Amino acid sequence: MSELISRAAELDAADELAGLREKFVLDDAVYLDGNSLGALPAAVPGRVDDVVRRQWGSLRIRSWDESGWWTAPERIGDRIAPLVGAAAGQVVVGDSTSVNVFKALVGAVRLAGAGAGADAGADAGGGAGGGAGAGRDEILVDATTFPTDGYIAASAARMTGCSIRPVTPAEVPGALGPRTAAVLLNHVDYRTGRLHDLPGLTAAVHEAGAYVVWDLCHSAGALPVGLDQHGVDLAVGCTYKYLNGGPGSPAYLYVRRDLQSRFDSPLPGWNSHAEPFGMRSEYTPASGALRGRVGTPDILSMLALEAALEVWDGVPVESVRAKSLALTDFFLECVASYVPEGLVESLTPVAHAERGSQVALRCPDAGDVMKRLIESGVVGDFRSPDVLRFGFTPLYVGFRDVERAARVLGDVLRGVLG
Amino acid sequence: MSELISRAAELDAADELAGLREKFVLDDAVYLDGNSLGALPAAVPGRVDDVVRRQWGSLRIRSWDESGWWTAPERIGDRIAPLVGAAAGQVVVGDSTSVNVFKALVGAVRLAGAGAGADAGADAGGGAGGGAGAGRDEILVDATTFPTDGYIAASAARMTGCSIRPVTPAEVPGALGPRTAAVLLNHVDYRTGRLHDLPGLTAAVHEAGAYVVWDLCHSAGALPVGLDQHGVDLAVGCTYKYLNGGPGSPAYLYVRRDLQSRFDSPLPGWNSHAEPFGMRSEYTPASGALRGRVGTPDILSMLALEAALEVWDGVPVESVRAKSLALTDFFLECVASYVPEGLVESLTPVAHAERGSQVALRCPDAGDVMKRLIESGVVGDFRSPDVLRFGFTPLYVGFRDVERAARVLGDVLRGVLG
Repeated sequence: MSELISRAAELDAADELAGLREKFVLDDAVYLDGNSLGALPAAVPGRVDDVVRRQWGSLRIRSWDESGWWTAPERIGDRIAPLVGAAAGQVVVGDSTSVNVFKALVGAVRLAGAGAGADAGADAGGGAGGGAGAGRDEILVDATTFPTDGYIAASAARMTGCSIRPVTPAEVPGALGPRTAAVLLNHVDYRTGRLHDLPGLTAAVHEAGAYVVWDLCHSAGALPVGLDQHGVDLAVGCTYKYLNGGPGSPAYLYVRRDLQSRFDSPLPGWNSHAEPFGMRSEYTPASGALRGRVGTPDILSMLALEAALEVWDGVPVESVRAKSLALTDFFLECVASYVPEGLVESLTPVAHAERGSQVALRCPDAGDVMKRLIESGVVGDFRSPDVLRFGFTPLYVGFRDVERAARVLGDVLRGVLG
Repeated sequence: MSELISRAAELDAADELAGLREKFVLDDAVYLDGNSLGALPAAVPGRVDDVVRRQWGSLRIRSWDESGWWTAPERIGDRIAPLVGAAAGQVVVGDSTSVNVFKALVGAVRLAGAGAGADAGADAGGGAGGGAGAGRDEILVDATTFPTDGYIAASAARMTGCSIRPVTPAEVPGALGPRTAAVLLNHVDYRTGRLHDLPGLTAAVHEAGAYVVWDLCHSAGALPVGLDQHGVDLAVGCTYKYLNGGPGSPAYLYVRRDLQSRFDSPLPGWNSHAEPFGMRSEYTPASGALRGRVGTPDILSMLALEAALEVWDGVPVESVRAKSLALTDFFLECVASYVPEGLVESLTPVAHAERGSQVALRCPDAGDVMKRLIESGVVGDFRSPDVLRFGFTPLYVGFRDVERAARVLGDVLRGVLG
């Protein structure tokens, strides 16, 4: 046991990202729930206070120009872009992840059917298949995905004359075909922490002539995504997990540059108009990423996110990934050492290429176990029916945290299950 | 001139709402742009700081329960409900106005077609008209409306197999017919300040067997709406104008209680699931107003709004309306006195029954005139091509403000146009 403690201290001493912890407000607990809600970056409270008191309270409407409110969605998008491997001008921030899944998936179906009647409404007489056009009328959806993606995908399918086919990511290559319009996939599974093969699956979807939408909620900010490099079509993600934007901070939408002029949003609000203050009755979409905007941006949440993203200045995602893998490796090692054999089973792949930044352990009475862990100062979360979920945010979690978490877990499990 | 000044002082002295001004952060300017962005309520900065530092920074994920984050959309909806004449349980807060227009209008079309194939996707083989079912395939949209409503309505029509027909509110009764599925109307016109006949138009839509969606952006918080009393089907509105929720604060959706079980949202995110944490792959909608929720609520913006709404405690909307009409009456009187004849023309109806809480004046060089007004401490806004827009928020605008605004306007107009 003391060997692991001294190893943890050595690893912390060698950690080039260790200094970033000071940029967050943390307490004595080991916080391993940053994959649900990221910790508060120290820069946020002062920034939000300035936004409220000076920008809103004093400048009021002048802030739409003078404080950069109007351009915040694309400006903050450009701040997120390098974290997901995107060049500037392709990411826009706003709305919830669910709303962005809807935009992206309907957009993908319309891209697939472009030239043959954009959707069911535009070609109401076309009968089955008229929706996606060109005979493409099926959306493949990761069946293991976070449920909202499936619910929204079903709505997108229904409203574009498509059908939904639930598959696992492994089944995607075999399920692709001439009927496939779009595929919605999760980069990292929210439950198991499994990392899926974004480059390989994207290539397979493209080979079948379809379009892919990646949900990056559980990967962005924890590992390199490489959207541009791998030719991803569209992507969405939240900002309140590894990006620490705050509770319900706005999500983002990526549309690859060469698809932007054909991106046809199902939510063409006035913020996406080429001339939003022209107040014209005809809709003319803006060019670029801001075509993905909808209504007036929620400035308080959005500018809190902007302040939160400043911790990333000069932090390479590759270093974050290296530390993330070291943290989860060390956690698995400590769990193997501290937890009596057979009490837990890891759902998270051992192979680095298949692991996100979390470890999911299955055990009986997991809800009760997590309650006791939290009482003992180790905060993860419970996912029904039997999963203990531990997220490792490399910006503020250290190796001593990891050792302590595993040690407390061993104690709790011996108490509850032993 | 001095007669108007002393009249203003008398009116202020008799104003039972005058004390509410202290609950806002204001400066020496006359702020007549609360119909664009409401002034900062004094309770907001402290509340937001608590949300950021304690609820997020210290309690973190525990706040979803302990700080009431999870239930905020319906709790704050219930706080807005009496301001729009709705009993509890029918209003939910979240997303932008544009997104809520989409939910409401698609929902209305589906209500109209219920029992005959809910939309184009569900009945892809049905051909033209299969969208709304029962032969109802047309959406009437107020052609004078704020543009985003028209853009979103066009998308809702396209995605449900309907067509759009732009009409003025006055043309609605004549345009209604057996093909009408839904009608989208603005309660108060954003440009002219004209108040439309919500009870009469709602009754006409119902007589034609269609469903009505009212956009309350420019009426809620300034005058009684009476949603329940007049049997309105669905309504949406923003919260950053007369409700003072802050820049881009979340909008709201009203679905009348007896329609809720048939309300079929096009954005069925996990927050609207009957059991959101069950993480089930099948979608089962929640009952009640929260069926209108979508994704994770933007807590910072939402709880700022909640604090902002506290100024309404014990304030009857009827008193607000009485003061609003007195303010705009007095403004028109002062303008008639201070502005040389023929320099401006009012677009706002004189009849109380047709007037919202703003006055729109048309004049040449309106953009330049507004710039000089703002430099002289009178803040309204300019709407292309030739409109000076002045909004009167009865909670914090007084009669001396009104007199001063008209007097400065006269000075500026004589300088620019005289």
